[in-house]
Amino acid sequence: MNNFIFQNPTKLVFGKGQIAQLAKLIPADKKIMMTYGGGSIHKNGVYAQVKEALKNHNVAEFGGIEPNPEYETLMRCVAECREKEIDFLLAVGGGSVIDGTKFVAAALKWEGEPWDFLMKPLKVDQAVPLAAVLTIAATGSEMNKGSVVSRRELKEKRFFFSDACFPKFSILDPTVLYSLPKKQLANGVIDSFIHVLEQYVTFDNKAYIQDYWSEGILKTLVKVGPELMENQEDYDNCSNFMYAATMALNGFIVMGVAEDWATHMIGQELTALHGLDHGVTLAIVYPGVVKVMREEKAEKLLQYGERVFGITEGTADERIDKTIAATEDFFKSLGVKIKLSDYNIGDETIEEVARRFGERGYNLGEKGNITPAVIKQILNEVK
Amino acid sequence: MNNFIFQNPTKLVFGKGQIAQLAKLIPADKKIMMTYGGGSIHKNGVYAQVKEALKNHNVAEFGGIEPNPEYETLMRCVAECREKEIDFLLAVGGGSVIDGTKFVAAALKWEGEPWDFLMKPLKVDQAVPLAAVLTIAATGSEMNKGSVVSRRELKEKRFFFSDACFPKFSILDPTVLYSLPKKQLANGVIDSFIHVLEQYVTFDNKAYIQDYWSEGILKTLVKVGPELMENQEDYDNCSNFMYAATMALNGFIVMGVAEDWATHMIGQELTALHGLDHGVTLAIVYPGVVKVMREEKAEKLLQYGERVFGITEGTADERIDKTIAATEDFFKSLGVKIKLSDYNIGDETIEEVARRFGERGYNLGEKGNITPAVIKQILNEVK
Repeated sequence: MNNFIFQNPTKLVFGKGQIAQLAKLIPADKKIMMTYGGGSIHKNGVYAQVKEALKNHNVAEFGGIEPNPEYETLMRCVAECREKEIDFLLAVGGGSVIDGTKFVAAALKWEGEPWDFLMKPLKVDQAVPLAAVLTIAATGSEMNKGSVVSRRELKEKRFFFSDACFPKFSILDPTVLYSLPKKQLANGVIDSFIHVLEQYVTFDNKAYIQDYWSEGILKTLVKVGPELMENQEDYDNCSNFMYAATMALNGFIVMGVAEDWATHMIGQELTALHGLDHGVTLAIVYPGVVKVMREEKAEKLLQYGERVFGITEGTADERIDKTIAATEDFFKSLGVKIKLSDYNIGDETIEEVARRFGERGYNLGEKGNITPAVIKQILNEVK
Repeated sequence: MNNFIFQNPTKLVFGKGQIAQLAKLIPADKKIMMTYGGGSIHKNGVYAQVKEALKNHNVAEFGGIEPNPEYETLMRCVAECREKEIDFLLAVGGGSVIDGTKFVAAALKWEGEPWDFLMKPLKVDQAVPLAAVLTIAATGSEMNKGSVVSRRELKEKRFFFSDACFPKFSILDPTVLYSLPKKQLANGVIDSFIHVLEQYVTFDNKAYIQDYWSEGILKTLVKVGPELMENQEDYDNCSNFMYAATMALNGFIVMGVAEDWATHMIGQELTALHGLDHGVTLAIVYPGVVKVMREEKAEKLLQYGERVFGITEGTADERIDKTIAATEDFFKSLGVKIKLSDYNIGDETIEEVARRFGERGYNLGEKGNITPAVIKQILNEVK
């Protein structure tokens, strides 16, 4: 096991009816900005529940934060918060709304141009306190310190991390998933699944519990994902899925182990260039990564195949083939197409993605050996 | 999955050589009281490492905190801290030292007699900040908010919980286990193992990930426990054991599931009455609990047997028998005797334990159906 430092102060408030707890969770004297997305919270009843819980609080609102939250939108939110002297941010939405709200929280305390801390390795050590009411299970943003922000005019999608951006609390009521569009459900299952794989399918770290925990989340997603596509209003499956998504990226499974993240880094570029859903980019790129990196990852791919999909027959090579195929089949069982050509993406984009990483001058993967040339190979595998 | 609220703010600093981080982790202006036990830290080099790391800090010392930390001892520590105007407590030791230090931290801020918050359900909401350097893997106290304190003159062993008592940080260097007496190693493996069972072998909570995570810790302990009894200076096994012990009782595996704790509650009385090691009391009592509660716990016992010990053959009853036997064999493989008679404990004690619970007027177990009469039955099973 590698040396590590772990801390995650977010309070998780989980279960049916928990949105009502908001009244107690936010101090009465706070000036709250409630942020949200395209308005689905008006349809699913979450907006009404939040407003009811906070009826005695001072609450302003900022809606319209889009998927892959946009810098320009968020900077408008920053301006409104400044004007209203907001001192507490409440994100009501999925990963995009929460990520965007983290950015706003940090930008409000930042001196200078906030775009800088997305483009340069600058330390963000202050933020306005924020919390979340989760409406989409997927990114894990509700219990971590990361945020991803896009700037469409520059075709950039960038991230930052800050200890100051852990939500003070996050409320997870699994029943909000009952009315989620199927596409978002599928994307969320894939996003959570790949989060785990990025922290698990590397090499043997002699971290037995971390491996079992990763496999536990994967097995749960393999079970509940397809069942939810059939019947979304199942509390057991919704609660296990929502829990899985949070546990997949809150630091619990990554203590003392190596991390990959090549799939996310490459996928992020596909979103920046073509606006593809985040989950879709992951389902496309991941099979390419493991096909190209199969030797480096062999030991873990065999373990993943055996423990998650029960693949034990055949030579090592055959078992790895079966494991990659099972992974692809799982994504497809969620109704997602997993080839670049399905999205009319071809060689030009492959060249551009490789060029971007060449320009940035760093390689990807747990061993830092995924060069721009290897990135090209990976994307060619999934054309 | 049940509704739950989870929060654990402790920073975990894990790995070889991490004790040196102390200098950065404690603010320079703090007046520190370093607490420890019987002096093993002088032999294993931990004392020297702590003193070296804190050479520019203001550090007082209080040694001699005994296993099952004693109220009188801790109250002397409280007096010394008051006199020296201590504003930071650093526990260097195992669960007893950390538990004792949590009590001191809370007592320093308590108005009135601190014994009260051990005997009555009073809320402890303030404590002097504390942190830990762990030297024994066992209780999980390094990353939770609980504390157990004994008062020998009254033959009482009592606990309290407080959010204010989460350590600010805990340093876990697995190499400190290399020189731990075998008996403490065995007790620590059992303590961690039973912590998991108390949160896992109840009934089906439809919490799939929590089950997998519990089983992951159990499987890890079944592997590394006996190996460590053979060869203690194995970093992989020491780090996995130390990690297991912390994860077994930091709230991670208990989100949304029922809890038992009958074994701990009954075992605590055996320590109070006879001074038995905590780990030993658990190894004695647990088999009695599952033998008597086998019907209520059948579903989980079958799952535990299959997933942890690979028991799949035979009728349900036979598999439960095998599972209980495998559990007993595991404890014995660590060199621990698991019958009351091995410790010259007989009917008188059984009567007294039952009498005490009768007096307190509450039952034990995840369903609250372990009455004093059932407690008697349990102890008679393990005579």
